[in-house]
Amino acid sequence: MATLQLASWATNLTYANLTTGVLTAANKSFYNWAGCAIGGFASQPAPQIALNTTLSPFSGPPTSSILGANGSIALGFADAQVAALVNGIASHVDDYDDTHLETIIHPAGPVASALLAIAEAMGPVSGQDFMTAFVAGVEAECKLGLSVYPQHYDVGWHITSTTGSIGAAVAVSKLLRLDTPHTAQAIGIASTQVIGMQVFFGSDTKAFHIGRAAQSGLLAALLAQNGYTSADTALEAKYGWLHVTREKGLDVADVKAIELRVNPEVLVLTGKTAPTTGLEAKFSIYHAAAIGLLYGEATPSQFTDEVVRNSTVVDMRTKVNVTEDEEVPTDAAYVSVEFSDGTTLDKHVEHAKGSLENPLSEAELKTKFMEQVTLAIGEARAERAYEAFTNAGGMEDVGRIRGMY
Amino acid sequence: MATLQLASWATNLTYANLTTGVLTAANKSFYNWAGCAIGGFASQPAPQIALNTTLSPFSGPPTSSILGANGSIALGFADAQVAALVNGIASHVDDYDDTHLETIIHPAGPVASALLAIAEAMGPVSGQDFMTAFVAGVEAECKLGLSVYPQHYDVGWHITSTTGSIGAAVAVSKLLRLDTPHTAQAIGIASTQVIGMQVFFGSDTKAFHIGRAAQSGLLAALLAQNGYTSADTALEAKYGWLHVTREKGLDVADVKAIELRVNPEVLVLTGKTAPTTGLEAKFSIYHAAAIGLLYGEATPSQFTDEVVRNSTVVDMRTKVNVTEDEEVPTDAAYVSVEFSDGTTLDKHVEHAKGSLENPLSEAELKTKFMEQVTLAIGEARAERAYEAFTNAGGMEDVGRIRGMY
Repeated sequence: MATLQLASWATNLTYANLTTGVLTAANKSFYNWAGCAIGGFASQPAPQIALNTTLSPFSGPPTSSILGANGSIALGFADAQVAALVNGIASHVDDYDDTHLETIIHPAGPVASALLAIAEAMGPVSGQDFMTAFVAGVEAECKLGLSVYPQHYDVGWHITSTTGSIGAAVAVSKLLRLDTPHTAQAIGIASTQVIGMQVFFGSDTKAFHIGRAAQSGLLAALLAQNGYTSADTALEAKYGWLHVTREKGLDVADVKAIELRVNPEVLVLTGKTAPTTGLEAKFSIYHAAAIGLLYGEATPSQFTDEVVRNSTVVDMRTKVNVTEDEEVPTDAAYVSVEFSDGTTLDKHVEHAKGSLENPLSEAELKTKFMEQVTLAIGEARAERAYEAFTNAGGMEDVGRIRGMY
Repeated sequence: MATLQLASWATNLTYANLTTGVLTAANKSFYNWAGCAIGGFASQPAPQIALNTTLSPFSGPPTSSILGANGSIALGFADAQVAALVNGIASHVDDYDDTHLETIIHPAGPVASALLAIAEAMGPVSGQDFMTAFVAGVEAECKLGLSVYPQHYDVGWHITSTTGSIGAAVAVSKLLRLDTPHTAQAIGIASTQVIGMQVFFGSDTKAFHIGRAAQSGLLAALLAQNGYTSADTALEAKYGWLHVTREKGLDVADVKAIELRVNPEVLVLTGKTAPTTGLEAKFSIYHAAAIGLLYGEATPSQFTDEVVRNSTVVDMRTKVNVTEDEEVPTDAAYVSVEFSDGTTLDKHVEHAKGSLENPLSEAELKTKFMEQVTLAIGEARAERAYEAFTNAGGMEDVGRIRGMY
């Protein structure tokens, strides 16, 4: 519930909820961040390297300020993604920004760097909306930090940036007025980008953590706004943020079953018993076995939502049982199909198709390529693409591939 | 040594080292990746959401292909950063790309997505150079994977992307002809971006991991090329990639000493005894105590390389001893200065400046802001910036701040 609770709290926060004390603290934190960024840009090479020689060639329309840059060099603007990164670096490069002493988090950097950059790109954003979003992001960072400190820190993570990408995502989601479900997806996409380890303290990379956290959170919120999916148990799930960044996970889950005998790793990867979409079905050995029996092949055509929800397929999946066996190699399987009249059909797959010992032939690989590419751009262009990509190793300029199909 | 060994191996790899078997496998892996990306772009919403509605507004000059996009929509190009991300998503969205069975890594995705995007942006890149870089990146991923598998995987990390950002950095560094020290820095910057947890399997975010790993590795190599520093023990250090992503770190290191008595956390953060640069000195309680005594203040002016290397300061640092004491709160310190005639001066700092109980006053915070900003853009503009940023909470459009100073 942690992910949805955080998302719901942030979605429902209003400016009227903010006490005078909170507003005063937020205001100080924000302008102190700006001072650090403006001063930091001029004081250290890190933000200038990031902006001038590295990211300028990739910047899109210059909607957003690079704090400090218009005081010292010509380029004072960049796209919001680049601005979030560079401002984040600049704001932390002097290690002179605000500190939440209980967790050693510097909360303003990731949140303000993402927020100001996107606020400029979005057009009119009121100070009240901005400060509400800022508070939401900072609160998210510090609450997350409190929930994992000190273990998370003692492992070696740089807690400002590991919580910072999530705080930035919450703040930007708030500014974009995302609802709770979309904010939860943003938290998910942000949390899977775990930025920052302590080995880099004392190098330019420490400040990079803050910029990349800001940028990662911003990207997460924008993706979520546009319908990109993640997981609404991102924080609390066994293989989610809180556990993965703190402790070893447990071993593979238990499973019952009988007709398939496979290596336990198969269930770690593909243990979904009741997939509901084509995407989920790729992680279901039950689905793979069912469609193998029903269709005789396992290509993208058998991993569509339609096929996954087909009642015959659903029915066949419930008949698949899986037994784990350490003795079975990871690329092998024992399959036993029992028919209603008592007949049994046994098959031992020594090496799965695509393994080192049973590779796709040149012809099979071409078939796979052509099937995918023809669907996308038609057969004639697919043939030319095949020629182009198979001959890349002999080209003088691989960049010209795009003109060849 | 792992970081430098990997960097050195990659730097010295030549096309002549690649056997026919390696080249054949690399060629198949590369063109299969292209097929997956071209087909994947058309088959699933994830790469289209990432490109069309999310990243198009931020794309810089369109130097690099979006594989599959020119078959279905108008926009077929983007800047190399965006292309690496979107092609990485598209190449994995069908979970149909190549697999290194021993580690369950899909090696081509992060490496090829970064390489093709930057190769197009760079101008002529020969197929031989391209394939050499591709092999370097894939080998880096799989060797790293073997060194941490299965523990790393069992914790819950998505091993394709956690190793993928490093593989992509190695590959792009190779293409850029970086030397061993610069390649090591690139490995560092890539390794601190730990992308991907298993909770997202079955959602759009799984494929995002591959794209973001590609983009993170590309960015790391470009930053390193331009002199951005990280750590050349990034992989093997106690708080580096191999350990942090696998197990809890140990507790704070032991220290001797007497004149400073502080909470043990102080040494976790600031335990550097002999800093050689201003940046390192910020993580040295020894330096902070020395300059506090010598200068009476601790502002950015006392954290320059010059001050850090000043012989009087160096000498004073060696006279500082630190004792850990769990009973001392994290924001407090006991300082005892003993003079050569036997006189002792004792000071108990109850709450450090900047802590909740001893905050900077409005005036002190303004002084801090002005000091930083004046250095960057002069006093008159700094005053205007102070006005603008302190009043952000009342603005109708925070985006207009940039025009106000």
